[in-house]
Amino acid sequence: MSGRLFSFVGGNTGPWRVMKNSVIVGESLSAVPKLDIVSGAGTVEKPLTGWSLRGITSNERYVMRDEKNQLVAKQQGLGRPEATMAALIPLRKSAAWWALTQDERRKLFEEQSHHNQIGMQYLPAIARKLHHCRDLSENEPFDFLTWFEFAPEHEGVFDQLLEELRASEEWQYIEREVDIRLVRADA
Amino acid sequence: MSGRLFSFVGGNTGPWRVMKNSVIVGESLSAVPKLDIVSGAGTVEKPLTGWSLRGITSNERYVMRDEKNQLVAKQQGLGRPEATMAALIPLRKSAAWWALTQDERRKLFEEQSHHNQIGMQYLPAIARKLHHCRDLSENEPFDFLTWFEFAPEHEGVFDQLLEELRASEEWQYIEREVDIRLVRADA
Repeated sequence: MSGRLFSFVGGNTGPWRVMKNSVIVGESLSAVPKLDIVSGAGTVEKPLTGWSLRGITSNERYVMRDEKNQLVAKQQGLGRPEATMAALIPLRKSAAWWALTQDERRKLFEEQSHHNQIGMQYLPAIARKLHHCRDLSENEPFDFLTWFEFAPEHEGVFDQLLEELRASEEWQYIEREVDIRLVRADA
Repeated sequence: MSGRLFSFVGGNTGPWRVMKNSVIVGESLSAVPKLDIVSGAGTVEKPLTGWSLRGITSNERYVMRDEKNQLVAKQQGLGRPEATMAALIPLRKSAAWWALTQDERRKLFEEQSHHNQIGMQYLPAIARKLHHCRDLSENEPFDFLTWFEFAPEHEGVFDQLLEELRASEEWQYIEREVDIRLVRADA
């Protein structure tokens, strides 16, 4: 059960250097030069200037068996040497989204927005890991922290992936989104 | 967003008196005379002899719109004056369950085990509230804390409800279950 909880700490230290910090919708996150990723439940102090966001990996909520099998066959893990660029995209969905039933959320997620299908087109170039925050406590600032890693030559297709998702029905339920682009400090 | 996180504290104080503490499968919970329910994120000290279990209410994971509409029409809230009996049933599902995809879990939950359909037959007599624990941290002792309230004349049908669920396919994935029966201390 270890290795599920992660803190993304924006501050003055860490192996990732922030290149760009863009707010897409809702409240921004303050500018920081570096990002650290800390595993485990130990207390992570919020830096004096900066922020700390927690998320936990969990079971998937909308993926069907045939989709899962395709994903597993195509996807790559994190930490590939060539993947020197990354993006941290914290997201918060609206109360209207969370009030939907499972079939309504699945329909919006896939049948209308093609979330898996779009993502699948960008495999194996883009590696991805989803962290859930909503049920960590009553008052988390985001519902999800999505982490992406890719090689510099794939930055353009990554931007295209985001453009497709942001144009989808599902994204009408996004009430806060920040897009932080990073490069490995040793790269 | 307030009012989602609850601690169920088994110890020497609280408005609910423990009548019976049965372990169904897996490790037991120690015997305590009373149960308190504390709302919110404040630190809840584990009693010297006893335990404290946390859970958070969340969106439903397997309910379809038509089922939800039926549930909402039939179910009753907690705190009814006549509902002087209660049950706290902490549950933990196996790693095999959590490795299933959404369609596989839904199929086991409803199409094979008829979880909603069984529960619906016991409405409005049995009021129910589900608290999720699995994503609160990496190491919660249970995945769910289910709280039930009913009048003494419905204890028999409540036992029947549990018997039906425990005989289902879904329950083959339960690796820890404790069944704590309570009566309102002022009743």
